[in-house]
Amino acid sequence: MPVSERGNVIRTAVCQYAPILGDLPANVEKGAQAIQEAAESGADLIVLPEMANSGYVVFSSSEARELAERPDESPAVARWQQLAQEYDIHVVAGFGEKVSDTALYNSALIIGPTGILGTYRKTHLFFEEKLYYRPGDLGFPVFDLPFGRIGILICYDLRFPEASRILALKGADVICVPTNWVSMMTPDRLWDAQGYCQANYVALANATMNQVFMACADRVGEERGVQFLGCSLIIDPAGTPIAGPASTDGEEVLVAQMNLSAARRAKHRNDLNHTWLDRRTDLYSPMLGHGSD
Amino acid sequence: MPVSERGNVIRTAVCQYAPILGDLPANVEKGAQAIQEAAESGADLIVLPEMANSGYVVFSSSEARELAERPDESPAVARWQQLAQEYDIHVVAGFGEKVSDTALYNSALIIGPTGILGTYRKTHLFFEEKLYYRPGDLGFPVFDLPFGRIGILICYDLRFPEASRILALKGADVICVPTNWVSMMTPDRLWDAQGYCQANYVALANATMNQVFMACADRVGEERGVQFLGCSLIIDPAGTPIAGPASTDGEEVLVAQMNLSAARRAKHRNDLNHTWLDRRTDLYSPMLGHGSD
Repeated sequence: MPVSERGNVIRTAVCQYAPILGDLPANVEKGAQAIQEAAESGADLIVLPEMANSGYVVFSSSEARELAERPDESPAVARWQQLAQEYDIHVVAGFGEKVSDTALYNSALIIGPTGILGTYRKTHLFFEEKLYYRPGDLGFPVFDLPFGRIGILICYDLRFPEASRILALKGADVICVPTNWVSMMTPDRLWDAQGYCQANYVALANATMNQVFMACADRVGEERGVQFLGCSLIIDPAGTPIAGPASTDGEEVLVAQMNLSAARRAKHRNDLNHTWLDRRTDLYSPMLGHGSD
Repeated sequence: MPVSERGNVIRTAVCQYAPILGDLPANVEKGAQAIQEAAESGADLIVLPEMANSGYVVFSSSEARELAERPDESPAVARWQQLAQEYDIHVVAGFGEKVSDTALYNSALIIGPTGILGTYRKTHLFFEEKLYYRPGDLGFPVFDLPFGRIGILICYDLRFPEASRILALKGADVICVPTNWVSMMTPDRLWDAQGYCQANYVALANATMNQVFMACADRVGEERGVQFLGCSLIIDPAGTPIAGPASTDGEEVLVAQMNLSAARRAKHRNDLNHTWLDRRTDLYSPMLGHGSD
């Protein structure tokens, strides 16, 4: 049944795999295979990892420039568009974006049957990304799709609670998170007894504090000594994982059903509690200040 | 060794027990026993649950008024002060506070060897608290103690990421959380395979996103059909539990060491990442807006 006849009940997939650093043609194929597997599992909305076109660990601006692509010239984008049209799906994919030789972004594209619908540019650049990419300049857009409203965050963005909060305040039903989680933040506790990495907890807390679905597509594998953590997962607005976490090293596609209209109604938890009306915006102006140590 | 000679390395305790609804004299004794046990374990900073003087589940304004106390007339406060002086410690305790017959607050007091040092009043009232108590009117104060800076949040406050963020931006080293976690928010997943309740994840995510210690003292037991969740815990700024979670039903005192000055330095994680400098305050003004569903 096409999504238009099912109302706001969709199936969302996160694709966990290992893009190959610098091998753009191979990444076109790896992404396409994952999208096909997800679409054939009935997914309407499919999330690929961060930097899915190019791989992640670059050591210089010239390497970053060489791997980044203009969306309208990217074979990966062309293939994603073709699959979105073929399967009548939407794809959110991390994308090393070149606007000019000196304007590179760690971006994500949202692509539907009719082509590119929008771009998000990573707001909070992590570590050496600061040396090679420009910080996102598009704010926190929310995209209206036929079945609901989609926001996008990328990896380190999740550690800034402002980002998820703003997307949810703007009405996002689902936050899609292309990510390349690494071990730098939690050197002594990569995965716990449940197989969760710490980023999983940060994601599920942000999901439940904001009463949104969250779909985190991480990558696996290793590049130039950097290990990626896997543990892709899909979370409901109560903060419960509804798919995953995936393994720490396997290529996997996870799919979960989301009833977006039920989740919107649930924001009014009962007569006395409400995610938004309970906020104390009269007291929140220090949020905009700078911290002191 | 007194804390003044140890610099900013302290021991913090969370006391998990079951206050008895309406039995104020019994609660004086239960709190005193827990404080003594913690102090004799070497704790410098001791956190008691929410509403430690009175118990929690009231059904009317008159019940709330009857159980709330003026701090300067409260036998519980007098006892906490006496113990703080005797052991040279600081106590943070949830307290049903009466300012006048019509001005009741779900508060927490911070008490040191010299007496009451400050008050926090719960900002985000949960469920029927809205019927009986006034919302906090003191903002998010940070208290300068001899060993470091302490902020306080109470229970439902943790689900509003603004609250932890503001305390951390104001320089809090430790967020003390007197709490009475209940099952209403997560009816189908009270505790997971690790023995964590969902509030534990929300707490550890807030701790690591803000690079602060967090000490959550929950209660156990049941009042009028409401089950409390236990799972008290102490978390370091990396988001790692350094004590607990405690059991779901036992009376326990957990103690953990905190090196506050090392944690302050760690906010500068490396040359390229910084908890505060990486924020994008240029993009955060929607935080102050009202949400749409």
